[in-house]
Amino acid sequence: MTREDLFRSMMETGSMLCVGLDTNYALLPGRFRSLGVYDAVASFNREIIDATAPFCIAFKPNLAFYESRGLEGMRALEATVDYIRTSHPGKFLIADAKRGDIGNTASMYAEAYFKAMDFDAVTLSPYMGTDAVAPFLSYPGKYAIVVALSSNPSAADFELGGDGKPLYRKVMERMMEISSPDNMMFVVGATRAQELKGVRGFCPDNFFLVPGVGAQGGSAPEVIQNGSNKLGGLLINSSRSIIYASSGDDFADAAAAAASVTARFTPAGLC
Amino acid sequence: MTREDLFRSMMETGSMLCVGLDTNYALLPGRFRSLGVYDAVASFNREIIDATAPFCIAFKPNLAFYESRGLEGMRALEATVDYIRTSHPGKFLIADAKRGDIGNTASMYAEAYFKAMDFDAVTLSPYMGTDAVAPFLSYPGKYAIVVALSSNPSAADFELGGDGKPLYRKVMERMMEISSPDNMMFVVGATRAQELKGVRGFCPDNFFLVPGVGAQGGSAPEVIQNGSNKLGGLLINSSRSIIYASSGDDFADAAAAAASVTARFTPAGLC
Repeated sequence: MTREDLFRSMMETGSMLCVGLDTNYALLPGRFRSLGVYDAVASFNREIIDATAPFCIAFKPNLAFYESRGLEGMRALEATVDYIRTSHPGKFLIADAKRGDIGNTASMYAEAYFKAMDFDAVTLSPYMGTDAVAPFLSYPGKYAIVVALSSNPSAADFELGGDGKPLYRKVMERMMEISSPDNMMFVVGATRAQELKGVRGFCPDNFFLVPGVGAQGGSAPEVIQNGSNKLGGLLINSSRSIIYASSGDDFADAAAAAASVTARFTPAGLC
Repeated sequence: MTREDLFRSMMETGSMLCVGLDTNYALLPGRFRSLGVYDAVASFNREIIDATAPFCIAFKPNLAFYESRGLEGMRALEATVDYIRTSHPGKFLIADAKRGDIGNTASMYAEAYFKAMDFDAVTLSPYMGTDAVAPFLSYPGKYAIVVALSSNPSAADFELGGDGKPLYRKVMERMMEISSPDNMMFVVGATRAQELKGVRGFCPDNFFLVPGVGAQGGSAPEVIQNGSNKLGGLLINSSRSIIYASSGDDFADAAAAAASVTARFTPAGLC
């Protein structure tokens, strides 16, 4: 999917929202808990996807939640990917995997998410350097999404440190040397809106995946004001505040209502 | 498993070897290629495990190789873990996952490897800070293995940089503040033997998982000389140079022969 396709999707939906499918079997509404993991997670996801699709441009399954349930969880992940591809073919599909290994191993992870499963993008950790990212860049229309600046408290441990130039900026500059905006995006946390503006300054064209809106406290209008570019340039993620908007049988309606007011945008709002 | 258990295992086998199960279906000997992925990978692994168990203390499946084959690959991974647990119960079992996500997500990954599957340890990427590691530290007898200094060329991108103190040292010092040698190990690459000696100087008690011996060019005797401590303190990994020692029907005998000469040690060799 091209950046222009993403921009068209934003115009059609009036949204920059990515719905995070952090689906936790233990937190599902009562009527799912009588089902096994596969049926419960796959059918909950289908209802969430159908309800929120009119108000979002992307879905992002968080792989930890599926792996933690073993093979049944992984089957539910595959079913979810297949469902989005067949029933909502225009949506951008992100594997939130935060993988970070090198060479041969990185090539295998790229096969896992771009071939064995048909994701458009995968999140990656940059610690081991460009070797951990390069194998993901050779799939046309697919994207590596490298974690630059995250929204958690311990981002201060390493990401924000450095001699003058913080580590996250060194990471972005080095990754930009080996890639283009057509195969590279970055994670930039929403709870750091001031940094977001600075980041857009030295990285004008890449899309940013922005976590931390909703349950983690970031503000979508502030993110759009500080981070958008001429093709929109933002995938604003919200997970728990949408998929768990209600714990009752009205969870899908509640998710749609939450999605419909999150990360709305109009072209006039773009820089 | 305690560090003392690991030391006893070294004494019994005369080895510090960890056999990396980077099992690639496309590279298996001919007689496996007529089987489906699950049968081929699971049975190849069983033969490798039986052949090399007398000469090693640990096994390390590399999850990328299983994920790249979808659900069949993941079934083969589960079968491999179960086989090691039932047939070779004293072996240390590492999930080479290089995961690096935070909070709630990190807790889910810990459940995936320590509950859904019975691994003793999992490799982690430290980029997002201590939030990405803390949830793995509350399982008694289990270990987080944090990547500090890797053996790939682009380790120089970020790991070796920093203002005076390189990033990998800041990572280790910060992680040591929130952990003990009984729940934390570090990845320290073998192709950097000089750094290994320095690392042992400021981190005397933690075990190190040392990749890069064998196919990547590191020398096991040099690693043992520079990196061991009073409980051994090293898990020296070799993957391709053992499991693909022969591409013919004698692959298991060849793997045993390669394992029997890799990472041998005697207590006299310890500091």
